[in-house]
Amino acid sequence: MHCGFAMISVGCVRQRFAKHIAILVLMDACASALGWYFTGYAFAFGDNLNADGATAGNAFIGTNYFAMANLATGANNVNSYYLWLFEWAFAATACTIVSGAIAERTKFEAYILFSFFMAAWVYPIVVHAAWSGAGWESKFRTSPVWDGYFLFGSGVIDFAGSGVVHMVGGYAAAAGCFVLGPRIGRFLPDGTVADFSGHNTSLFVLGVMILWFGWYGFNPGSELYIVNGTTAVANAAVTTTIAPATAGLFALLAKTVSHRFIERKSTRFVYDVGVMGNGALCGLAAITAGCSTVNPWAAIVIGIVSGFGYVISSKIMVLLHMDDPLDAISVHAFGGTWGVAAVGFFAEANLMAVAYPANSPMDQGVFMGGTGRLLAAQLVHIIWIAGWVLCNMLPFFYLLKVLGLFRVNPEDETLGLDESYHGGSAYPGLSEDSSFHPEKGGASGPLHTHKTDNGFQHPPHKNEIDDLRAELMALKQAFHANVNATK
Amino acid sequence: MHCGFAMISVGCVRQRFAKHIAILVLMDACASALGWYFTGYAFAFGDNLNADGATAGNAFIGTNYFAMANLATGANNVNSYYLWLFEWAFAATACTIVSGAIAERTKFEAYILFSFFMAAWVYPIVVHAAWSGAGWESKFRTSPVWDGYFLFGSGVIDFAGSGVVHMVGGYAAAAGCFVLGPRIGRFLPDGTVADFSGHNTSLFVLGVMILWFGWYGFNPGSELYIVNGTTAVANAAVTTTIAPATAGLFALLAKTVSHRFIERKSTRFVYDVGVMGNGALCGLAAITAGCSTVNPWAAIVIGIVSGFGYVISSKIMVLLHMDDPLDAISVHAFGGTWGVAAVGFFAEANLMAVAYPANSPMDQGVFMGGTGRLLAAQLVHIIWIAGWVLCNMLPFFYLLKVLGLFRVNPEDETLGLDESYHGGSAYPGLSEDSSFHPEKGGASGPLHTHKTDNGFQHPPHKNEIDDLRAELMALKQAFHANVNATK
Amino acid sequence: MHCGFAMISVGCVRQRFAKHIAILVLMDACASALGWYFTGYAFAFGDNLNADGATAGNAFIGTNYFAMANLATGANNVNSYYLWLFEWAFAATACTIVSGAIAERTKFEAYILFSFFMAAWVYPIVVHAAWSGAGWESKFRTSPVWDGYFLFGSGVIDFAGSGVVHMVGGYAAAAGCFVLGPRIGRFLPDGTVADFSGHNTSLFVLGVMILWFGWYGFNPGSELYIVNGTTAVANAAVTTTIAPATAGLFALLAKTVSHRFIERKSTRFVYDVGVMGNGALCGLAAITAGCSTVNPWAAIVIGIVSGFGYVISSKIMVLLHMDDPLDAISVHAFGGTWGVAAVGFFAEANLMAVAYPANSPMDQGVFMGGTGRLLAAQLVHIIWIAGWVLCNMLPFFYLLKVLGLFRVNPEDETLGLDESYHGGSAYPGLSEDSSFHPEKGGASGPLHTHKTDNGFQHPPHKNEIDDLRAELMALKQAFHANVNATK
Repeated sequence: MHCGFAMISVGCVRQRFAKHIAILVLMDACASALGWYFTGYAFAFGDNLNADGATAGNAFIGTNYFAMANLATGANNVNSYYLWLFEWAFAATACTIVSGAIAERTKFEAYILFSFFMAAWVYPIVVHAAWSGAGWESKFRTSPVWDGYFLFGSGVIDFAGSGVVHMVGGYAAAAGCFVLGPRIGRFLPDGTVADFSGHNTSLFVLGVMILWFGWYGFNPGSELYIVNGTTAVANAAVTTTIAPATAGLFALLAKTVSHRFIERKSTRFVYDVGVMGNGALCGLAAITAGCSTVNPWAAIVIGIVSGFGYVISSKIMVLLHMDDPLDAISVHAFGGTWGVAAVGFFAEANLMAVAYPANSPMDQGVFMGGTGRLLAAQLVHIIWIAGWVLCNMLPFFYLLKVLGLFRVNPEDETLGLDESYHGGSAYPGLSEDSSFHPEKGGASGPLHTHKTDNGFQHPPHKNEIDDLRAELMALKQAFHANVNATK
Repeated sequence: MHCGFAMISVGCVRQRFAKHIAILVLMDACASALGWYFTGYAFAFGDNLNADGATAGNAFIGTNYFAMANLATGANNVNSYYLWLFEWAFAATACTIVSGAIAERTKFEAYILFSFFMAAWVYPIVVHAAWSGAGWESKFRTSPVWDGYFLFGSGVIDFAGSGVVHMVGGYAAAAGCFVLGPRIGRFLPDGTVADFSGHNTSLFVLGVMILWFGWYGFNPGSELYIVNGTTAVANAAVTTTIAPATAGLFALLAKTVSHRFIERKSTRFVYDVGVMGNGALCGLAAITAGCSTVNPWAAIVIGIVSGFGYVISSKIMVLLHMDDPLDAISVHAFGGTWGVAAVGFFAEANLMAVAYPANSPMDQGVFMGGTGRLLAAQLVHIIWIAGWVLCNMLPFFYLLKVLGLFRVNPEDETLGLDESYHGGSAYPGLSEDSSFHPEKGGASGPLHTHKTDNGFQHPPHKNEIDDLRAELMALKQAFHANVNATK
Repeated sequence: MHCGFAMISVGCVRQRFAKHIAILVLMDACASALGWYFTGYAFAFGDNLNADGATAGNAFIGTNYFAMANLATGANNVNSYYLWLFEWAFAATACTIVSGAIAERTKFEAYILFSFFMAAWVYPIVVHAAWSGAGWESKFRTSPVWDGYFLFGSGVIDFAGSGVVHMVGGYAAAAGCFVLGPRIGRFLPDGTVADFSGHNTSLFVLGVMILWFGWYGFNPGSELYIVNGTTAVANAAVTTTIAPATAGLFALLAKTVSHRFIERKSTRFVYDVGVMGNGALCGLAAITAGCSTVNPWAAIVIGIVSGFGYVISSKIMVLLHMDDPLDAISVHAFGGTWGVAAVGFFAEANLMAVAYPANSPMDQGVFMGGTGRLLAAQLVHIIWIAGWVLCNMLPFFYLLKVLGLFRVNPEDETLGLDESYHGGSAYPGLSEDSSFHPEKGGASGPLHTHKTDNGFQHPPHKNEIDDLRAELMALKQAFHANVNATK
């Protein structure tokens, strides 16, 4: 998954921010691993167990297994190294979603702090609520909470994390994007919107496909981990195929039609690969909650709404002057929210019985004959996540801002963060700067900076331009000589 | 797999078609999923079953499970969500092969129609014939057809689809390429052949490696699905390694020697990474039919023929003025055909007994002591696929052509389809166009278009050229002033 | 894995060597497959078996299964097609490590010879010693050698090959780099070090992430193959996460602090994504030996040392004028050596009992209460590998050098090997050369060379420059005409 996020991110930022975004994503992988190691996993899954193995933990937070202490390694345990690793991949994903929305203007130091804060505190609390055996809204509860075992007698269905992963990432992205403000020059005083295109569509498409493929690890993988049954895995794999395919097609349709007939920007149809790719991702974020409990036809419906909704959401973000280079908010916050809600409409009893055998039969989706208790639980899940994430991340980001740690200064932003913070362009052979910067006996990694290459690797046309300039100078001298002579 | 195809495709087209080809491949994934959902799977595998579970379906076409209705989810069923998903990956592959051969000049609308037509109709019929329990040439038949159970008492061996996937894709590619005609300027009136190099060799090589890796999912994966036995999986994995390795080496050898000594284009050896990569892919396409039933030494022989044959086939395509940007025809049509035939020569009895336990012993390859009945079945398989695909696709493409839907107009082709249909270059920072196109309050995805970037990110030398021009203008004015003054 | 190496390699070389390095890595995959097929596997694992199934082979070298003859296919055999395939992936990795260190100046013919020599002879002997059931230092021995079954009564722990794979690759890389000498212009006569930056940081980061992901196949995969137990797999997966995360963070920390305060090259913190990525890879190389036998906290310690050590090692390489474009020596030779040694300090008895059930209990790491016998075995492993590899590769590379086969001539190196040996730039649209080279009826792969594209696809500014030149010429003529007229 992380490969995919890295490629999408790199492809979507402008060229002089390529190393900036790449190191953010790499930082996510590293910082989330340590954050998850020290406290994240403990807060998320560190519940006490009764003598009979039933979970007797706190409904809000886990309290064991800090730094993996006393954690079992074997796969037959409720808590184990396996679960740690599998869940780390989700934690890293939630962090990385944010990097895209605050790219091109965030200080690297601020991002390190964010990455730990997210993986070690904000994200684990949400996981605990929805996925642990003691969480207050969890469908895996084994002891009573409030008036019964499960929220509204149902509990929340968020199988692989439309809410837990994508809403958390998406709302944190929105908070960061709001506090940071837009990139310089994006929204001009006269009301025009400058188009800051990403610099490499090929890498973006590679990223979309890697993510789509990686999602088969998350969605059917979650099934395998929890259910150990092949039926639910198969259903999850099929819906994880159909929803993004539909969403990609309908996002493209919506954008193409709107571009020509509503926005009237062109007199022909223009097919935008970025919209198609992001639409498919939005469909993936949406099907993540219900992949195991909705039918293939419902996946089509979820996909259609995701596709249209992504385009509309993206438009609204621009109108609100929320400057999100990757459209991460529209993809993950909207997609995730819609996905959580959709379960309340489309979850089907037979599939639920397979996917959640210990907690069955329960209320199903309202379009499938349910009473609405599941839908109510899903809505609580949405409100809880949005509230928790915003209440944590907004103050956090404001604090960074007040301390002057959040945003780079305007000169560095204009110049490009690769030049100012990351030692030069990501593509030395392509950049303007061809001056010679030898290092005095210094150690330099192969990627260091300031391409020089002994003067041999000039950017294209360097020689032609030099020749022209020489010829122009000669002509100028001849001209002035002649002028002086004829005076 | 799709990641791999996307990268190879993007790497092999010219720079101003990068978004064009990327959206074709993304469209394949989406359209094939829906085509496969609505009718594809039903035509391919929707056979009726007798009370005893034996297949009693039509020999030509399946008739159940449209839109996955009544399809079982569990893995223990003949037909299931699992098979649907696994087979979708093959369907998407067959579609995508075509995109490369008709790239850089096909209308996007035509491609959408093609993609559905292929996934919903052309491809499934071939699958049904060779892989379903009722197919007329299938080695999995469970009821008599004509004079016995199996074609020539043997049935066809096409394990993971040298014929079903690669020949179908390759011959459809040939049909499209033939109807479309070559790209403008590729074959010049004086007989010269312009070289339209792909714009990114790095992505091409990445694609080759992803595909090679992905092939382990297809070839040994097919074993796992059907045989559930480790022996055949191991054999398939080994032959899937040896054949491409040999083919890559021998394709490189053939091209390098031919380039220097036969074509005499150079006085030194020139090593072409494109030929090596495509040679390896040709070896993969060829080993796909027999991966489970030929010995490792036979994989070397198959690889050698694939490597030499690819180079020859590629040369013939140029002589025929078939303009195939990715060499998809040489890789898949030639490679697939040779692979199907090779099984008739090299299939070995012991390996067949493991890979096809229900239909064993049967006739083996003629070089291994067979009587030729298997070889005859393989040849029928080749003729049937070539005929079926060409008889469907040629009229289909001609119809598109007659309706004016197939090929873009020459101006758009010359300008590059990214600019005319996909909203601008895939690499904004690199293109010439640096004019400012603010959008008036419009919603714009991050990849939208018309880079402006507030005027800061000029292409290399922009400033130097501007300076030169200013100086030249000044000199010109001075000169004319002087001329006038001295008149 | 190979995808990852390819991308890192391509990203780290200069632009005009992109095809050169890509074909090296592709050659590794192909040549190592054939080398491993004909003799590599046989030397590594081709031991004789006693009647009771115990290994009775030569302690130095295997003698059976040349060209896979008589090798069993099933997974239940000690030797099988499975082991062949799994171990081939390691062999290809060991070869590929070298390509980075000798890139940009090695003849392709020399690399082919090297690749076979490595996969067919040098690497297998090391594998046999450490991993076969008869190897003299192996922990899998089943018959006595010298004074007992195991080296120092312990045997060597090198689970997935910190020594066998990474040290072999890393020391061979050092040998090649030493014999070749630095690239032209890298170390200047006045003591300055020119910075030859890699041309594509985005591909580098993609490569790092693919490798990190691929490592889960190697490290936990080795567990699965040998132990078939889930506990050891889980431990390996966790340590394979924590070590690179820690190493990446600490390498970045070390480099950032050193860059500002020790080398004083900048007055602000500069975050180098290349150092972070290579640091993580160094951590991966180091955890490979002990992934199954050290605790997560020990993985943190191993990661910290890897991160700092990588930065120091990289600096030392520059001081020694060892010109390693990818820092392969620092990553693999240093990382691998440290990893092998670290097992002698941190291996824990309980984990060893799970990972090596047949050879347990044995001596553990000295920090965990061991007696030092394991540490002694690990040190012998280090000395043996370094000695064996250098004693084979130094003469081999010197022989190539003496025969004039090793290094390209200076003109080709300066021009870039893509132009001189691989038929033109990897990125035709971006290069200087825009001359027209039609082929006279020649076959040309899509990636062939000499972009011409019918004159439409000029590099950026081509037209602007041509216009300027035309105007300048016109002015020149007018000037001279005027001068003549006024004479």
